[in-house]
Amino acid sequence: MLQPPPAVPGMREEEVDTPALLIDLDAFEFNLDTMAALVADGGAKLRAHAKTHKSPVVAHRQIARGAVGQCVQKVAEAEALAWGGVRDILVSNQVVGASKLARLAALAHIAEIAVCADDPVHVEAIAAAARDAGVVLRVLVEIDVGGGRCGVAPGGAAVELAQRIAASPHLRFGGLQAYHGRAQHLRTPEQRHFAIAAAVDDTRRTVDMLRQQGLDCAIVGGAGTGTFELEARSGVFTELQAGSYCFMDADYARNLDAAGRPVTTFRHALFLLATVISATRPGLAVLDAGHKAVAIDSGMPVVWGREDIRYVSASDEHGKLELAEGATLPIGQKLRLVPGHCDPTVARHDWYVGVRGGRVECLWPITARGGLH
Amino acid sequence: MLQPPPAVPGMREEEVDTPALLIDLDAFEFNLDTMAALVADGGAKLRAHAKTHKSPVVAHRQIARGAVGQCVQKVAEAEALAWGGVRDILVSNQVVGASKLARLAALAHIAEIAVCADDPVHVEAIAAAARDAGVVLRVLVEIDVGGGRCGVAPGGAAVELAQRIAASPHLRFGGLQAYHGRAQHLRTPEQRHFAIAAAVDDTRRTVDMLRQQGLDCAIVGGAGTGTFELEARSGVFTELQAGSYCFMDADYARNLDAAGRPVTTFRHALFLLATVISATRPGLAVLDAGHKAVAIDSGMPVVWGREDIRYVSASDEHGKLELAEGATLPIGQKLRLVPGHCDPTVARHDWYVGVRGGRVECLWPITARGGLH
Repeated sequence: MLQPPPAVPGMREEEVDTPALLIDLDAFEFNLDTMAALVADGGAKLRAHAKTHKSPVVAHRQIARGAVGQCVQKVAEAEALAWGGVRDILVSNQVVGASKLARLAALAHIAEIAVCADDPVHVEAIAAAARDAGVVLRVLVEIDVGGGRCGVAPGGAAVELAQRIAASPHLRFGGLQAYHGRAQHLRTPEQRHFAIAAAVDDTRRTVDMLRQQGLDCAIVGGAGTGTFELEARSGVFTELQAGSYCFMDADYARNLDAAGRPVTTFRHALFLLATVISATRPGLAVLDAGHKAVAIDSGMPVVWGREDIRYVSASDEHGKLELAEGATLPIGQKLRLVPGHCDPTVARHDWYVGVRGGRVECLWPITARGGLH
Repeated sequence: MLQPPPAVPGMREEEVDTPALLIDLDAFEFNLDTMAALVADGGAKLRAHAKTHKSPVVAHRQIARGAVGQCVQKVAEAEALAWGGVRDILVSNQVVGASKLARLAALAHIAEIAVCADDPVHVEAIAAAARDAGVVLRVLVEIDVGGGRCGVAPGGAAVELAQRIAASPHLRFGGLQAYHGRAQHLRTPEQRHFAIAAAVDDTRRTVDMLRQQGLDCAIVGGAGTGTFELEARSGVFTELQAGSYCFMDADYARNLDAAGRPVTTFRHALFLLATVISATRPGLAVLDAGHKAVAIDSGMPVVWGREDIRYVSASDEHGKLELAEGATLPIGQKLRLVPGHCDPTVARHDWYVGVRGGRVECLWPITARGGLH
């Protein structure tokens, strides 16, 4: 069941029902503008990743600032975006199963659709779905540039797969998917440089080998919020797939710059608003938001603007707070939390509550929430 | 947006779209029948916890086997159950905020509603909501019997709070909430005995003190799947709040019996069906189910019936499998996973797919999915 929204436009932030997912609109727009300015310098364009936000509303605001389209991980996310008017969508992932591929091919009637492959099995199945739907699908070859998860080895194996794609009358070879997920959260700039330099080398070599076979890469896509400036400067990548930059989470805020300080390119724009529901002993309080409301896979959330309070543990529906000596929190007090990891936190909610200047300005549905298929 | 169901009744299990949450109906009914038989022996009744299943369909099947009603943690869960015909609901948690309490009080027109308090602030607010709605609400005093989270201290503080409740014309003192969450997953029977013995002592002492003040406890509630047999035998507890027993997860299966073997009272009845989407190197495969589809707060899921395969890590949308030497997994292969923790896994899905004998028998909506408020 879609849950009713926890707020009404015009309400004060303190009146919002909790737990609620807030977007600080000033910080959010700052992030979108900052990214647009950063990518305006280079050859690579932004294709922002919708796995973070799951919302056509956010997608359109990114596209209005120059993003060429959106990435998604799931067909259900592609559907939510295409049905919401997004015209250019890359599934930066493998899609397996005839019913999923039929749904994906159907979307090609209303949007530009591309999808990844790392095995001939994928190519055959995508071609069959495209043929049945009477469309031509763009297929990118995913290469493993250090993530150790999906992707064929760079070089010859990738060329072979690209040739299979190009040989199909129902497919168009779309280029390379070369995302280094593990590099995004490496803490020092040296570590990130080192990892991405190797990824760029592997990608450049594969692009060159493809060109020698007459196969041009319309898209060479990859990069995330932690490394996109490196891929942008590479001269090889044409599209950057950053997602988290629009919201920023506590874990990304632990990445460091050359001076050893946290990177501050983007601001925290996503918050979980929560309420103190119990406070029966000194130094401890309990929030109405546990890990069903805020993801803890990348660490506990951070209490915003209150260095005297630490969110120390989450159970299903409760968050336990430790208070510094002398600090108190009355029952009913609302606090903003910065999620440890924004993507899976968003996936637990039905609504964004957009706030500005202490007031609720808008409600946006998280249309692709639950879009696991 | 509510997602479409991943299956159609009559389909073979291998045809179900993934990731999908399966209920093995034979195992599920075995678990319900086993619990009904176990509690039939003692004085305590089952009030099964709906935080696990979030579904009136499951609730009614528990009630049909003798459960006196349901527990919930959130008002939205109480709504989903009451609107689905469940008549007796205890919110085993504190509810803070005027709008939430107004919604809760409104439910008292169609169901028996009880809620917990551990502070006079709660009592006043619940009384105000009950008065405004023209209903009388039952309020239980929550005591801390070792969980270290919510609850007043057993003894005098609890009696004082009960007297406040009893003094309100809009409230009825309903008894004690005495749940020891931390004891549920203690691994050895000795540890669980020790923890619950102390909880029982605290609870008995508080019940006696209340009786001396003329305050009878209609409900003395607590216990979970890990310890309910201990509370049932205590002679003090009247209601058992086990939830996970109906599904069982990988973490509960790590509890041991007196012989040092895993407790096998209940069977695994909840599975996440997932598909291999990539397999580019020997010994490794990638599933289409990461931690957006299966909770990892209590450990990784376990691959069902395949001891040669381990689910070793989860990212947002991918699960990485390590294969024993010689084992292979083709792209497209579907596998059942036993979730590490069932409650938050259920909270990530819109539909249960009920299977029996390899066929889809039914689809049940997870009505309170997203019910965080």
